[in-house]
Amino acid sequence: MTRVVQKFGGSSVADAGSIKRVAKRIAATRQAGNEVVIVISAMGDSTDDLMDLALQVSPQPAPRELDMLLTTGERQSASLLAMALSDLGVPARSYTGSQAGVITTAAHGNARIIDITPGRVEKSLDAGNVVIVCGFQGVSQTTKDVTTLGRGASDTTAVALASALGAEYCEIYSDVDGVFTADPRIVPGARRIPEISYEEMLEMAACGAKILHLRCVEYARREDVPVHVRSSFSDKPGTWVRDLADITKGSAVEEAIISGVAHDRSEAKITIAGIPDAVGRAAQIFQIIADADINIDMIVQNASRVMNGRTDLSFTLPMSDGRTAVEALNNAQESIGFEQLLYDDQVGKVSVIGVGMRSHPGVTSTYFNALAGAGINLQMISTSEIRISVVVAADQVDQAVRVAHTAFGLDSEGEAVVYAGTGR
Amino acid sequence: MTRVVQKFGGSSVADAGSIKRVAKRIAATRQAGNEVVIVISAMGDSTDDLMDLALQVSPQPAPRELDMLLTTGERQSASLLAMALSDLGVPARSYTGSQAGVITTAAHGNARIIDITPGRVEKSLDAGNVVIVCGFQGVSQTTKDVTTLGRGASDTTAVALASALGAEYCEIYSDVDGVFTADPRIVPGARRIPEISYEEMLEMAACGAKILHLRCVEYARREDVPVHVRSSFSDKPGTWVRDLADITKGSAVEEAIISGVAHDRSEAKITIAGIPDAVGRAAQIFQIIADADINIDMIVQNASRVMNGRTDLSFTLPMSDGRTAVEALNNAQESIGFEQLLYDDQVGKVSVIGVGMRSHPGVTSTYFNALAGAGINLQMISTSEIRISVVVAADQVDQAVRVAHTAFGLDSEGEAVVYAGTGR
Repeated sequence: MTRVVQKFGGSSVADAGSIKRVAKRIAATRQAGNEVVIVISAMGDSTDDLMDLALQVSPQPAPRELDMLLTTGERQSASLLAMALSDLGVPARSYTGSQAGVITTAAHGNARIIDITPGRVEKSLDAGNVVIVCGFQGVSQTTKDVTTLGRGASDTTAVALASALGAEYCEIYSDVDGVFTADPRIVPGARRIPEISYEEMLEMAACGAKILHLRCVEYARREDVPVHVRSSFSDKPGTWVRDLADITKGSAVEEAIISGVAHDRSEAKITIAGIPDAVGRAAQIFQIIADADINIDMIVQNASRVMNGRTDLSFTLPMSDGRTAVEALNNAQESIGFEQLLYDDQVGKVSVIGVGMRSHPGVTSTYFNALAGAGINLQMISTSEIRISVVVAADQVDQAVRVAHTAFGLDSEGEAVVYAGTGR
Repeated sequence: MTRVVQKFGGSSVADAGSIKRVAKRIAATRQAGNEVVIVISAMGDSTDDLMDLALQVSPQPAPRELDMLLTTGERQSASLLAMALSDLGVPARSYTGSQAGVITTAAHGNARIIDITPGRVEKSLDAGNVVIVCGFQGVSQTTKDVTTLGRGASDTTAVALASALGAEYCEIYSDVDGVFTADPRIVPGARRIPEISYEEMLEMAACGAKILHLRCVEYARREDVPVHVRSSFSDKPGTWVRDLADITKGSAVEEAIISGVAHDRSEAKITIAGIPDAVGRAAQIFQIIADADINIDMIVQNASRVMNGRTDLSFTLPMSDGRTAVEALNNAQESIGFEQLLYDDQVGKVSVIGVGMRSHPGVTSTYFNALAGAGINLQMISTSEIRISVVVAADQVDQAVRVAHTAFGLDSEGEAVVYAGTGR
């Protein structure tokens, strides 16, 4: 008997009809002889609706209480799915994150999973049930209060449970067919990637491919849980995310230098101009940003442009944190001693990712030549061992993705790829 | 510092505006120096909405899962109320029934409170919080699953918590001003009862006065928790339900023979005609009803009407169980050997209640004369030490309530009573 964890997103359980459809799919998996654990998101837009309600009551909802409120969403979809399965003759039980033993930190709204103690889930599986676990939530180890893992973190719950339960693999169902070489809305010739390594998927997720949540991929890599990303609206195979060593040799994608092109429009760029070129200034700046609980992404300091003992520093951060960051830095203008602060949210990040680039020189020049040929100016550059990211003007993002996709030979030669839906 | 428990019903927290209004009221109680525990119902019609959703997914929702679903309602109102209180500078924490230590039987949908272990609530009170507890729900002692206590049982949660926490009293806020001598929609001259004994309130609740849930009054009586029934829409005093010995001597109501007239249109009458007059037939009939999990109310067997060795038996039961009961009995027609089964849901029960009748002879004749004078036929009669109930035709219920109210001198002499809203 194979033990599998399957996660269904909000769009898969948006209404009663969808819930019944998903139940049929799960029943088939169960009847094929598998032990099945389901991780479920809240129905459709219900989390947003609850957030709206909270904001009607309070401009800044108390975080502990917001978690009490938002976690009701998954509980509703989980219990409804269990009812639908029971009606199909499949015994099913729903469990909250807390009941399923998802132990987290106490950081309301953005808790991290510390441990999974799946005793109750194991017992329920042994009793022959399909076990349905509310995604996105857990219980704080210290306060025993209900926590949420942050938006989109149901994927992480699924992978963490798969690891704790020793499942063969974890399937993430959503409304997309898998991971593509680029966003098919931008590149019509984009192809589904049948297999991809954890490392590449991690870079894709970090670079704006919204297929899998970053933390989920981190977790899968650390615990070596194979993840199958696929559509709940079809039976087609999706994309397997797994250890590089397990990836089928000779597959077309493995031979490609670049696995995919990702883009991200959710970041903004802050440039701090005229910083005194003294030891500790950068540390001071990023301490201010860290104190405001903001994650930064790319950082560029052009040390060669020191003029009159002053230098410039640019970094990118989530656009939603832009205002907070600008305020915090402006408040510290005197102590940092910078001359000017520039904020630009009309930017986008375009990244090429692939383990192949490790052994192929010239990837950078191919990429930059393609962008230059299209007249695209590079505002910032950042690289890792298997990724090259550039920041460009927002209105040039689509074109940058297309020329990169073509330059690395990723364009589909045969029939057009049918793309099932929008990104999450 | 006085410790009080206050319960707010669904109509008091129907939307964001109501929640903020209730929060202000609670903040005032807290700032007056009280330790405050709040028990809260789900927002407005949200429990009905969730039930509709469940029925869309499953014609007969699995009871365990239905409880998982429905309990999200109170959790939402509780967390929203906590947010609103925080915004007013009042520290507040919401707790599920399970977190608050409401331990119940495992009977999903109709669980009973076995025990309250309020350790976490006590701690939270000690930390200076207003504690908000989800009404209507608990956790099964045996299965550790989430349970509900049955509709309207948030009142019971409140009284049980008040008892477990040693609160001075328990206030039940709803959209009515208190307990009235009759339903003011039927009797415009009905008066608010300032004080009433547990026993009378119990009879009132059992006889259709929907002000307080029956189980709640039973609990209050057993644990001697004074209950103040009042409106959340005004500051007027309501009705105190307390021990008979504590009721103010010389109050107008104490001197009345009858405290109030209650009526109930939710029952139906079943008459089983032509039952062989043999030992054990009645037991057999009520075993069948009990096996169908139906509570019966009044039973009348007219032993004097034994004709040809056969007799008739009538009883009342909740109208919602009528169909089930009729089917169960018809299936057993052969083994019971009755001739005919008559079902009538065009009936109503009208009851006069008062501890005063213990020491006043002639209450029955006063009551029946009043009904006879209005040409009202009595279909069934049932009495307790402090109550006389009759079943009459549905279309004569209002008139019966009015003539009884007048006959026992309950009609208001002064100004008309302002009645705030409809019954719950």
